[in-house]
Amino acid sequence: MCQNHGVAYIKPGEVEVREIDYPKLAIGNRQCHHGVILKIVATNICGSDQHMVRGRTTAPAGLVLGHEITGIVIEAGRDVEFIHEGDLVSVPFNIACGRCRNCKAGQTGICLNVNPARPGAAYGYVDMGGWVGGQAEYVMVPYADFNLLKFPDKDRAMEKIKDLTLLSDIFPTGFHGAVTAGVGPGSIVYVAGAGPVGLACAASCQLLGAAVVIVGDMNKERLEQARSFGCETVDLSQETPLPDQIAAIVGVPEVDSFVDCVGFEAKGHGADSDKEQAATVLNSAMEVTRAGGAIGIPGLYVTGDPGASDKAAQQGNLSIRIGLGWAKSHSFYTGQCPVMKYHRQLMNAILYDKVQIAKAVNVQVIKLQDAPNGYKDFDKGAAKKFVIDPNGMIMN
Amino acid sequence: MCQNHGVAYIKPGEVEVREIDYPKLAIGNRQCHHGVILKIVATNICGSDQHMVRGRTTAPAGLVLGHEITGIVIEAGRDVEFIHEGDLVSVPFNIACGRCRNCKAGQTGICLNVNPARPGAAYGYVDMGGWVGGQAEYVMVPYADFNLLKFPDKDRAMEKIKDLTLLSDIFPTGFHGAVTAGVGPGSIVYVAGAGPVGLACAASCQLLGAAVVIVGDMNKERLEQARSFGCETVDLSQETPLPDQIAAIVGVPEVDSFVDCVGFEAKGHGADSDKEQAATVLNSAMEVTRAGGAIGIPGLYVTGDPGASDKAAQQGNLSIRIGLGWAKSHSFYTGQCPVMKYHRQLMNAILYDKVQIAKAVNVQVIKLQDAPNGYKDFDKGAAKKFVIDPNGMIMN
Amino acid sequence: MCQNHGVAYIKPGEVEVREIDYPKLAIGNRQCHHGVILKIVATNICGSDQHMVRGRTTAPAGLVLGHEITGIVIEAGRDVEFIHEGDLVSVPFNIACGRCRNCKAGQTGICLNVNPARPGAAYGYVDMGGWVGGQAEYVMVPYADFNLLKFPDKDRAMEKIKDLTLLSDIFPTGFHGAVTAGVGPGSIVYVAGAGPVGLACAASCQLLGAAVVIVGDMNKERLEQARSFGCETVDLSQETPLPDQIAAIVGVPEVDSFVDCVGFEAKGHGADSDKEQAATVLNSAMEVTRAGGAIGIPGLYVTGDPGASDKAAQQGNLSIRIGLGWAKSHSFYTGQCPVMKYHRQLMNAILYDKVQIAKAVNVQVIKLQDAPNGYKDFDKGAAKKFVIDPNGMIMN
Amino acid sequence: MCQNHGVAYIKPGEVEVREIDYPKLAIGNRQCHHGVILKIVATNICGSDQHMVRGRTTAPAGLVLGHEITGIVIEAGRDVEFIHEGDLVSVPFNIACGRCRNCKAGQTGICLNVNPARPGAAYGYVDMGGWVGGQAEYVMVPYADFNLLKFPDKDRAMEKIKDLTLLSDIFPTGFHGAVTAGVGPGSIVYVAGAGPVGLACAASCQLLGAAVVIVGDMNKERLEQARSFGCETVDLSQETPLPDQIAAIVGVPEVDSFVDCVGFEAKGHGADSDKEQAATVLNSAMEVTRAGGAIGIPGLYVTGDPGASDKAAQQGNLSIRIGLGWAKSHSFYTGQCPVMKYHRQLMNAILYDKVQIAKAVNVQVIKLQDAPNGYKDFDKGAAKKFVIDPNGMIMN
Repeated sequence: MCQNHGVAYIKPGEVEVREIDYPKLAIGNRQCHHGVILKIVATNICGSDQHMVRGRTTAPAGLVLGHEITGIVIEAGRDVEFIHEGDLVSVPFNIACGRCRNCKAGQTGICLNVNPARPGAAYGYVDMGGWVGGQAEYVMVPYADFNLLKFPDKDRAMEKIKDLTLLSDIFPTGFHGAVTAGVGPGSIVYVAGAGPVGLACAASCQLLGAAVVIVGDMNKERLEQARSFGCETVDLSQETPLPDQIAAIVGVPEVDSFVDCVGFEAKGHGADSDKEQAATVLNSAMEVTRAGGAIGIPGLYVTGDPGASDKAAQQGNLSIRIGLGWAKSHSFYTGQCPVMKYHRQLMNAILYDKVQIAKAVNVQVIKLQDAPNGYKDFDKGAAKKFVIDPNGMIMN
Repeated sequence: MCQNHGVAYIKPGEVEVREIDYPKLAIGNRQCHHGVILKIVATNICGSDQHMVRGRTTAPAGLVLGHEITGIVIEAGRDVEFIHEGDLVSVPFNIACGRCRNCKAGQTGICLNVNPARPGAAYGYVDMGGWVGGQAEYVMVPYADFNLLKFPDKDRAMEKIKDLTLLSDIFPTGFHGAVTAGVGPGSIVYVAGAGPVGLACAASCQLLGAAVVIVGDMNKERLEQARSFGCETVDLSQETPLPDQIAAIVGVPEVDSFVDCVGFEAKGHGADSDKEQAATVLNSAMEVTRAGGAIGIPGLYVTGDPGASDKAAQQGNLSIRIGLGWAKSHSFYTGQCPVMKYHRQLMNAILYDKVQIAKAVNVQVIKLQDAPNGYKDFDKGAAKKFVIDPNGMIMN
Repeated sequence: MCQNHGVAYIKPGEVEVREIDYPKLAIGNRQCHHGVILKIVATNICGSDQHMVRGRTTAPAGLVLGHEITGIVIEAGRDVEFIHEGDLVSVPFNIACGRCRNCKAGQTGICLNVNPARPGAAYGYVDMGGWVGGQAEYVMVPYADFNLLKFPDKDRAMEKIKDLTLLSDIFPTGFHGAVTAGVGPGSIVYVAGAGPVGLACAASCQLLGAAVVIVGDMNKERLEQARSFGCETVDLSQETPLPDQIAAIVGVPEVDSFVDCVGFEAKGHGADSDKEQAATVLNSAMEVTRAGGAIGIPGLYVTGDPGASDKAAQQGNLSIRIGLGWAKSHSFYTGQCPVMKYHRQLMNAILYDKVQIAKAVNVQVIKLQDAPNGYKDFDKGAAKKFVIDPNGMIMN
Repeated sequence: MCQNHGVAYIKPGEVEVREIDYPKLAIGNRQCHHGVILKIVATNICGSDQHMVRGRTTAPAGLVLGHEITGIVIEAGRDVEFIHEGDLVSVPFNIACGRCRNCKAGQTGICLNVNPARPGAAYGYVDMGGWVGGQAEYVMVPYADFNLLKFPDKDRAMEKIKDLTLLSDIFPTGFHGAVTAGVGPGSIVYVAGAGPVGLACAASCQLLGAAVVIVGDMNKERLEQARSFGCETVDLSQETPLPDQIAAIVGVPEVDSFVDCVGFEAKGHGADSDKEQAATVLNSAMEVTRAGGAIGIPGLYVTGDPGASDKAAQQGNLSIRIGLGWAKSHSFYTGQCPVMKYHRQLMNAILYDKVQIAKAVNVQVIKLQDAPNGYKDFDKGAAKKFVIDPNGMIMN
């Protein structure tokens, strides 16, 4: 049980599966008697991992990736009281202490005690506290009693593991985008981006009772995936302006709610659809959201982007037409999804067959050694969500 | 166009279709230049009409019944600006001025300007302001610009008229019960009562993403109807205690949310299931709702009930174990549903096929002259929602 | 440091200061490495202690009382990470694990892991989990990282200790009553009861910006106390009906919000003002609260009351005119205040002089050995809040 | 009664009192039988009027200014039912129909029926629907039953008219900024801008129970005014960075809530404090607001600004470091304040002496003919709120 392998970032464009340290109940000198060691059942490749792998961050070589983790507890620290060996658990990607002001208020995405640099932490992510990632065989999860969601019935959970693995990040993240955008029964919604988070958001909008969910992207395969579960779609590689494409679907050039599932690596529209235009999604949001509507922004925006094309964007400054939003009394909700706010309820929705989230995002299970290929395919725009099965517990 | 027929209350157990006055834009001496005359397309028999017909109220002989109305505008008062002749509209059962403090706050169920006796009014209902009911060919709707919901496309609306007619009361009422009970994605819910409001509530819970919806009643036909669209059911004529029946379904004897769709004419459980026990649903609510849960009470409770079996209940006093609710930090939400808060969004959910509400409550369309039979069948517990088609616009 | 003295319940009407065990980091066989030992700086006598002392509960002889605790950490368990020896801290009266579903949702009053009998626990209280009370020199507080609020500056805190000691219960409890009753800027509020919780609620209403705060009681001294900080008052020993007394103050017989700070030991009105009428406050609430208003119920209602005058009330059943509330679309909020939701913000309000809560409730500091007299005076209706200074840290 | 005079915009930097048309119950060809004619008691000069007068908009010569209006009804249209001749009323600056989807939802700042160009309208404002302004002797108010707030007691109201006149705009606007920024009891708040809206916001924060209200500006006289009612202040003409100035007051370089009461005509900091930097307040907001905090933006941002110094800003594009807000999970609330949501409650707070708003913003009453001087003094930065008394009803 003392061997461990994981996916490490090597250099821009390259990741590698290598032997890594078997986890301890500690991070550096800080003891984690409140932590557990998990044998990982499923761990997913996320779009935000790609920012690092594309070299758009300062991630160091050797960083072990992976923040979407589901596993079985094989060792529990002495301060762990309610989680036990053998429990099958979902790990929220945001690491939280459960003891600070923000955690007590349910804002686990900005915990004050898990990252010396700033509020908020995650596994296997640059500038996110130094916690080792979970695209691996084993990982350590701190503050286990607080962070972990235990599945009530292990066998029943394993039958739906491809769905339940999405509880660690993208299902709650897409759902949070929808909730903050005010989506509810009867809503007309536009979801920007048909990657896994966008698709998870679209499925979430349906679960919330939305009347029409329109997904926009320029990747035809991903748009096809969105249509496969009942979404309307807008092809942004076309020249037709977005309001007109929306009007063609719902009769008016406006939506009630808008969710930005793209973030700072956004690209333009029509002829510009291969050029980065970091502010384009936010500006579209203000253009097509009805007066009084809300805009959820789960897509990542960064404080600095060395790889950006212009100097302002390198410092994280985007040219935003905020006056348009002001004239329409818009509200805007940003930031990491606090997964814990939603995962229990979404687990129920999965277990009782109210949502087919794995199907919506097109889960494909791969072996750990195939992770590097998964990264490549995903980067090319495959309409798939890659779920790594590091211990052969799903495929066998 | 000057003839009109409607359903009138005659005496306990008896209603009659008779010629009634053609509506004017006035109520008594009060002019209603803000009103419209509707040719009625659909108008439904409601469980709350039964309270009057059973003689449990002080409704006077001759009262024209009916507060669930959908129709076409055939005359608009001089102060009506945004509703026009020919519009097909849904009428919220609560009459509201749109100008008082409560209406401005969205609390249209307790409008201060439409009932001299107390806040809140309705069509065709005892003590509700004296407005003429709409189980008729024609009816007057005051404050039309404020009250009416216009369907955007008349032909498309007529295709779904059996669903849309439920927007005037029971669909929003059931939905309001669910919303106030805190129902959302993943919720485990108990709905007390499988009459039309209970079934509409159950369908609303599903639209809101509930994981499990359990409907309780002692009428086997109605329970069968609940199962027909995916609800779990509890048969209250059985002796098994309610918590045990719930545990048999979800593994624990508790639910997250409880909606009382029964009200003061509640009956007991098991051997008592033919005896009135007005407080039994509220007491069950506190028993089976988890600590911290919410209880929505769209079912009607009255301030006085001459027909009640005991003296306290005759004065509207029920014996409630409030300490149990207190120990569990329950919250309770009572009152008429403010239909306007929900009808536009629920209309969208119908028009875009996100809910099959007519099917859920088992709509049966009848002619105006068949209304007396409808009342009788409904009183006997038919698992149907009777929709009257007074002008032959649905069936022909 | 191994000696400890505390206030113990002996029999109805009698408490005694006696030597008690020095606290351990455990409760029975359950280890509490997450706990701390506090040297108590201030600990208050609460109205809910009186229920036990009056013999209205099944509290066993010898039970050490006290759930309103402020103290200095003198020993921290091995798993306590963010609270340190020497910290001056406020203890929420509700004991909470910080790790269960309810705690994660901020509902610390109904924690699932601290009381085998039912959700929710407290120090020194019958049926509340068996935790030793804090009207003593020393006490153990479990889950210290989660439960405790550390005062940022000890010296500044000691200057306001008479105010800050109220953060453990009655200030948040009164505030919670106000918040759940919908109190905000411009509200007209009625607070039932001028005991310490009622007065704390009245001061909370003022802090929330209420326009008029009316406090009702039959104890003239307590009403005088309410007037001392700007409240209006209603003397319930007068025969004038409550609506008329309210109308004499604000021109209409109604209020926007109603807070029940009395609970099940309520007494009647006018000639009945010396008779227990357990449901009278709730029934008054529905009578005088405007349609659409909310009713906060921090006052305790019990599931059983052996000392009640009638049989229904002995089983916790009260005769409530719920139909009146229904007709007015009232909502009702019950249960223990989750102190943690409010204590940090209320601490700020105290530290920055925005509220004079000690003056509002008329704090009187007494020695530990004077606690029995404090209980007696309080039971007689003294318009005072007794704060025990067990270690001579306030008075000396 | 057929004469009328008002303040007209002439050209950049110049306004003039001239004879204007006596109002009709119409706007162009659109009849307003739902309107009333008011004899104006008080009408205030607003900072947003200055945008027009400075020539930063396309306001046409001759436009009659004024959207902050309080008056007495002297004629009521035939369809007005609940407002009567002789009523003393406050007029929300946002004109609203009370009949559209947005009005029904309480979003009266974006009414769909009062401005053909876009949602939302106001009196006397460019691009806001063409309604005649009220810095005049008489004005017409449409949809009077819906829009107007009647003061319950005319004499009592006239005694507080300097306070009550602020209900038409700046008190609710400042309050809305505070509410959307999440201000409540115990909050630490930063208010950007010490003009009348900023001061009204600061007073609102106090009414809401804020622990510390810090007001920032570079105008020493206005900062002095802020200190006069208990605010802390930050002088932005100093070079000390804002976080450091905040830390000097509250010990940390962060606040819980931030309200932008400046808008697009913002100026820089320190040496740049005389240069326009339109995005500087928004970027400061993200810098000093704690993670998880909210940012209220009642300050006006425009969709185009011909007078802006750079081309992007001329088209309304500002360079915003949104990634910083994202990293801190900020939320942002923009748009006109929907006055009706707040004015009744704030009226109560004034009438019952819970807030001294006229004193906070330093009301100075002037005659109509002195309005041009008022505009000039205000533009120079006078720490005053000019209230025009066009009919000599306040000063005489």
